[in-house]
Amino acid sequence: MVLAGGLGGSRLALALAETIDPGELTIVGNVGDDVEILGLHVSPDLDTILYTLTGRLDEAKGWGRAGETWNTLETVAELGGESWFRLGDFDLGVHLVRTEALRRGEPLSAVTARIARALGLEPTLLPATDERLRTWLATPAGELPFQEWFVARGHRDGVDGVRFEGGEAARPAPGVIEALEAADLIAIAPSNPFVSVGPILAVAGIREALEGRAVPAVAVSPLIGGEAVRGPAGRMLAHLRGGTGPQHVTDCYKGLIDALVIDEADADAEAGVRTIVTRTLMEDAEGRRRVAEAVLESVAALR
Amino acid sequence: MVLAGGLGGSRLALALAETIDPGELTIVGNVGDDVEILGLHVSPDLDTILYTLTGRLDEAKGWGRAGETWNTLETVAELGGESWFRLGDFDLGVHLVRTEALRRGEPLSAVTARIARALGLEPTLLPATDERLRTWLATPAGELPFQEWFVARGHRDGVDGVRFEGGEAARPAPGVIEALEAADLIAIAPSNPFVSVGPILAVAGIREALEGRAVPAVAVSPLIGGEAVRGPAGRMLAHLRGGTGPQHVTDCYKGLIDALVIDEADADAEAGVRTIVTRTLMEDAEGRRRVAEAVLESVAALR
Repeated sequence: MVLAGGLGGSRLALALAETIDPGELTIVGNVGDDVEILGLHVSPDLDTILYTLTGRLDEAKGWGRAGETWNTLETVAELGGESWFRLGDFDLGVHLVRTEALRRGEPLSAVTARIARALGLEPTLLPATDERLRTWLATPAGELPFQEWFVARGHRDGVDGVRFEGGEAARPAPGVIEALEAADLIAIAPSNPFVSVGPILAVAGIREALEGRAVPAVAVSPLIGGEAVRGPAGRMLAHLRGGTGPQHVTDCYKGLIDALVIDEADADAEAGVRTIVTRTLMEDAEGRRRVAEAVLESVAALR
Repeated sequence: MVLAGGLGGSRLALALAETIDPGELTIVGNVGDDVEILGLHVSPDLDTILYTLTGRLDEAKGWGRAGETWNTLETVAELGGESWFRLGDFDLGVHLVRTEALRRGEPLSAVTARIARALGLEPTLLPATDERLRTWLATPAGELPFQEWFVARGHRDGVDGVRFEGGEAARPAPGVIEALEAADLIAIAPSNPFVSVGPILAVAGIREALEGRAVPAVAVSPLIGGEAVRGPAGRMLAHLRGGTGPQHVTDCYKGLIDALVIDEADADAEAGVRTIVTRTLMEDAEGRRRVAEAVLESVAALR
């Protein structure tokens, strides 16, 4: 099973789904960056995983759907409505169906399963929790909700701390703990440790289940040569952990991992945990295969 | 001012807006066919008026927006969601903005005014009421909500009666009674008397204001040669009023009108009220001008 944020998470999930039996894979997705836009419940990380693993992702942008159109948002902007969060027309259908289901009282995990089935997703996709959990960032500009920091302000504000609203109260969604306990291996995706994996670990019981794991757990570092492939992970590691080497990634997952898959460019740096060195960029099927095999080999070696 | 349903209503409203100072025109629109689809509040008649008078209507279909795309609904259908009611992508922007505003507590009249301003509508568009009012049809298949009868079942079921849920409790939206009292003329559009104009007259106070009018009121008959231009009005008049002549239209507006604009094809039939004969089809600007002038002349003659 894999704990996954957005793009990095979906890439590793795809890599594993292409390498092992996809029906055997469970993906636990981050919901800390879920957001209400125009009255719709948007789950960006779950959707990136859904779109990536069913061949619908806009690969060039790294989010949203391929061949997307933007006509609804054009009207919304014309009417002075909220248009900073880019919701495409095809994409909106998911948000409408999800929001209506949630409003009827269907849990997020249940509607996610329905949407996943309809889109043809083979692995099991579970939100970390069915309850409300929201990531907030402490910045010099004040505390900001995740999407305001990430999208509206382009994550330009430095982050002094991360808070998970609802994290302590949130229970794992049905199946999450069971999947952690039944897994042959637990992988943590090369997503941002603070804002993508962090909110998953903030759910009461998930961190504890990972700490008490009976099988190897391995994280894939989001860094290549001390820099994040994408997004603010590098800057956050430097500021919040004091550096951007493998060790600083390991520090984020203390007691939670047995190995770290790192890139060749970081092979000489201290990691503080057993490492597996490969090329970690997952730009194509070949790159994904390499990383999936590194994860699987590390687990075999650890057993 | 004009009391207007959907397409016929929007055509007469456009005809008048093209003939008099549009800033002087108030349109009171039907909300009895409003419907919740996918959690969105849809006001089809208000939107047909908005789109018609701002040049956005799909003229060929007679509803929705020109150049529309259907990608959101394609996703919804893929997910097994409600897709029988055709919501286009551009159109959805209006429903999202409206629904969010209503959920925040903004009255329908206020959000309608905001949307109208943003789309560049010159006349004043008022919903008959800000409160919930819904049209139900008694049919051999049972009592059906308006859109289920009209769209989902293609108005194939005969109508034995019409009921306006919430009609007795609903108060006129702010400005409606004032507009009726301040008007130089009151026109009733060639919309379906039962399901388009009927719900407006069902709002407590609107019928009374019309009965106590100080200025002439004139209706435009929806019939040409004893048949409705479009939709089920002819069949409903035959079944509920016993025929499809001008007299049967007049019967729908007893005590409410001083004259009826009828088509040349119906010129020889009894009307039971003063008639103005013209060609009533409003297929183009010339047709609209003809009908607007007939309305204005009838009022001048009645004064």
